[in-house]
Amino acid sequence: MAEHSAVEIIIAKRDGSRLTDAQIDWVVDAYTRGGVADEQMAALAMAILLNGMEPDEISRWTAAMIASGEVLSLPDVGRPLVDKHSTGGVGDKITLPLAPLVAACGAAVPQLSGRGLGHTGGTLDKLESIPGWRASLSLEEISAQLADVGAVICATTPTLAPADRKLYALRDVTGTVESIPLIASSIMSKKIAEATGGLVLDVKVGSGAFMKTLELAGELAETMVRIGGDHGLPTVALLTDMSVPLGRAAGNALEVAEAVEVLRGGGPADVVELTVALAREMLALAGLTDVDPAAVLASGEAYPVWERMIAAQGGDPAAPLPRAGHVETLTADRDGVFACDALAVGTAAWRLGAGRARKEDPVQAAAGVLLLADPGERVEAGRPLLELHTDTPDAVGWARAALAGGVAVVDEPPARADLVLATIR
Amino acid sequence: MAEHSAVEIIIAKRDGSRLTDAQIDWVVDAYTRGGVADEQMAALAMAILLNGMEPDEISRWTAAMIASGEVLSLPDVGRPLVDKHSTGGVGDKITLPLAPLVAACGAAVPQLSGRGLGHTGGTLDKLESIPGWRASLSLEEISAQLADVGAVICATTPTLAPADRKLYALRDVTGTVESIPLIASSIMSKKIAEATGGLVLDVKVGSGAFMKTLELAGELAETMVRIGGDHGLPTVALLTDMSVPLGRAAGNALEVAEAVEVLRGGGPADVVELTVALAREMLALAGLTDVDPAAVLASGEAYPVWERMIAAQGGDPAAPLPRAGHVETLTADRDGVFACDALAVGTAAWRLGAGRARKEDPVQAAAGVLLLADPGERVEAGRPLLELHTDTPDAVGWARAALAGGVAVVDEPPARADLVLATIR
Repeated sequence: MAEHSAVEIIIAKRDGSRLTDAQIDWVVDAYTRGGVADEQMAALAMAILLNGMEPDEISRWTAAMIASGEVLSLPDVGRPLVDKHSTGGVGDKITLPLAPLVAACGAAVPQLSGRGLGHTGGTLDKLESIPGWRASLSLEEISAQLADVGAVICATTPTLAPADRKLYALRDVTGTVESIPLIASSIMSKKIAEATGGLVLDVKVGSGAFMKTLELAGELAETMVRIGGDHGLPTVALLTDMSVPLGRAAGNALEVAEAVEVLRGGGPADVVELTVALAREMLALAGLTDVDPAAVLASGEAYPVWERMIAAQGGDPAAPLPRAGHVETLTADRDGVFACDALAVGTAAWRLGAGRARKEDPVQAAAGVLLLADPGERVEAGRPLLELHTDTPDAVGWARAALAGGVAVVDEPPARADLVLATIR
Repeated sequence: MAEHSAVEIIIAKRDGSRLTDAQIDWVVDAYTRGGVADEQMAALAMAILLNGMEPDEISRWTAAMIASGEVLSLPDVGRPLVDKHSTGGVGDKITLPLAPLVAACGAAVPQLSGRGLGHTGGTLDKLESIPGWRASLSLEEISAQLADVGAVICATTPTLAPADRKLYALRDVTGTVESIPLIASSIMSKKIAEATGGLVLDVKVGSGAFMKTLELAGELAETMVRIGGDHGLPTVALLTDMSVPLGRAAGNALEVAEAVEVLRGGGPADVVELTVALAREMLALAGLTDVDPAAVLASGEAYPVWERMIAAQGGDPAAPLPRAGHVETLTADRDGVFACDALAVGTAAWRLGAGRARKEDPVQAAAGVLLLADPGERVEAGRPLLELHTDTPDAVGWARAALAGGVAVVDEPPARADLVLATIR
């Protein structure tokens, strides 16, 4: 007879108990190895979602997920390691300028990323629109690139937190995604296993984000900061607005182009502001407080780091990016103020081919939405507002339907939140 | 794309909504056919357990379970059909004298039963201790026996409510058994599919029962009575005490022997009382109110019906019952009052071999516990109190451990509840 039984553990959580450390260690390990069945973990995940977990219980769950695989062991790369994670938003290409910027300021960024699902794009999908660029690197390649360039953005390795990979796929089909303990432990287990020296979290709030309210986003951020602390990983979280898209581009190649503008010292003000705010926190965690990331970004000094980072992974930073075969422009139907909801734009970009509905779907490199005016800007009738880019023109009807009600010209400018809403240390 | 999605339905229940009729019909049907995965149904079952169901939602769920299979179509057997179901208790052999008694009074009892699991025995397991008796009958055999004998106790057919069979096995391994909506719909779907004309429920309350409190048992009883009404099946529930064993025997052949005593007009008073109380309700539902089941039972007139019922299924009612190879007697260690907890005795009988831990385990026909004094009776030191019967003497240590704390001689007689605690119509 096993030392623990899955049913006993499910019933404990179902009836509102804190799971013991031994129960957590056993069930996560047994699930990873196949000794606990998917239907048992699904029932447990639903019980966790509905009954919650204590803070130290979440930390132990995270530890068990980390222990299900390897912890990355990087040799000394001669720079302090610091990483960033975003919970995902529309037009959120911040990692692209941020990693080279932080490297240009003296730290090293080991950014192990995933692909996108639904209306928010994935960092790897964006970079794969660059001809020749490859996401998969060996541990040796990652180490060498960190020492040489100071920044690497690549696919996560299957040996990091395999329990999380299995559990995430299960949660996706069992209605158990929306659990703060499970979301927080999923994110943090991968980041802690990555063995970074510091972590800055960008927790998005608003229509285009997973967390729709400041209260829920704050709870998620506090949970993750606490997990980081419990595991000896200095962690800071920014709560940032995701009620409107970040910048003017949503879509893979479109976002790479915008990131390059920012790296050359230009680009939309909100993308610059958030990149600098996150860089400042990362540099503080790395102990590099005598460098001003705003000045470095504005000077264009981060752009050569970007070129080297792309080239090190086989990409040609000078190659033209793919362009969509079909572009349609939407114009203002009246005078007024341009209102633009993040979820509507994200869904439209997804429908145009920039995102995937199932994890095995391909994405279109060139598809997406380009804003031609800033949200909140006063526009006149006939002014072009958005471009819809796609290689599958049949999708335009779906994209227009997604935009209906979310993009409009209105009388009064909608109240606009600050970009950085709060900081949790 | 499917008309409904499992994830959408799980999320609706997770977030506290009443499932729509269409959602219920779809998910139960799709689960039965394999279109909804076990892990999805496990998450839904946990959400139902924790968030509950509305009364009409439970009735619809029951209807969907019935619709997953056939509804039994019995020809006119010349007598009104009426059935009984017990939620299970220690020493609960009531079905054995009850079915012949009700048949002797003029009704027909189509009792499709299951096997036991854990500390409560199964009716089929008990009858299988009779040499030659077989549980599996065809629909033709059931009909003929009902017309001829008026009583049949046999295995349920796999075509009745197959959704329930699949869901019950899933609940058993996912910590989702203890849900009143799921328990009630499981029991009632099988009974309604059996096409009886009336149903009497014996809902057990106390240490040896599934429901430990009167409040929970009452909620279960009311839920089942309502489901019966919603499906046009007149249903009455008795809440009965299960804090001490029923009668003096717990174990398969031991209980058959006690049932035969009762059918011959003798036997323990509590077994007689409950058999008569249930018979009276069944006869009332069958419209047979001018016959007194107490008199019929006391006269021994039901015994020949038992003989014919057993013989019709290949059993030899005159054959000696199996006897255990090993019997140990426990005696009173002091003067006082005999206190005897149902769960302790049920667990001891199970450990001795009368019950099974997993549904594929065999049971011992002769194993069990025989009480030699009545609970609450005053006894002197040295008086024999219990016999432990088994073919596996190694199990006696486990049985003694199960009895420790539950069987004792004490100073004050414990408060004894009425046998029939309440009736819900």
